[in-house]
Amino acid sequence: MDGVVDLAEKLRLLDEPFSPAIVGYYNDNKLVVAKVLGEFVWHAHEDTVALFLVLEGRLTIQLRDRDVVLGPGEPFVVPAGVEHCPKADEETYVLLVEPRGTPNTGDAGGDRTRPEREI
Amino acid sequence: MDGVVDLAEKLRLLDEPFSPAIVGYYNDNKLVVAKVLGEFVWHAHEDTVALFLVLEGRLTIQLRDRDVVLGPGEPFVVPAGVEHCPKADEETYVLLVEPRGTPNTGDAGGDRTRPEREI
Repeated sequence: MDGVVDLAEKLRLLDEPFSPAIVGYYNDNKLVVAKVLGEFVWHAHEDTVALFLVLEGRLTIQLRDRDVVLGPGEPFVVPAGVEHCPKADEETYVLLVEPRGTPNTGDAGGDRTRPEREI
Repeated sequence: MDGVVDLAEKLRLLDEPFSPAIVGYYNDNKLVVAKVLGEFVWHAHEDTVALFLVLEGRLTIQLRDRDVVLGPGEPFVVPAGVEHCPKADEETYVLLVEPRGTPNTGDAGGDRTRPEREI
């Protein structure tokens, strides 16, 4: 648990899009990196808030009433219970902060659900 | 550089307020944690943007035209060149993302400047 995390190095370990990996913890929260390419699934996290921060590329967070387009360094908070669907047309990398145990597909489930893992 | 960072553990290593410590890197950016208690100094970072994320407590970022009050999980971006002065009435912990080499006191300098350090 000591040492300093190198996110650029961690990103190089990501291959499959939408397969998030834990790079750190803050109490009950996990710090997660993920590659985004293409479109994910519509889902909501009923009781948990997610902070998105784009590291590289360009992320669109589709909401039911609008699209939020984020570039590097632009944070966005998805409130609990709000349906969203991330997508990216180019290879994009994001940092997420969300409670431990939050499933990547939220209430949607399905075959794009991934177990929590550290890298 | 491997492993997973435990921010809660890192925060326990912070003693002096306004003495930031690096917990990670993302390319040319540093991920920094700092304790905030009392008032810092007014300063600006002429060419660099800073992302603030409160981990614990309550942070007021004084700007020249208003105060921004942040609780845990509420991110705020201070644009380049914008004068600001962080303060907190209670012990508060923040995560910052900003370019490597950015001095904590920006253009103000003075005896509250701290060298970059890792914890």
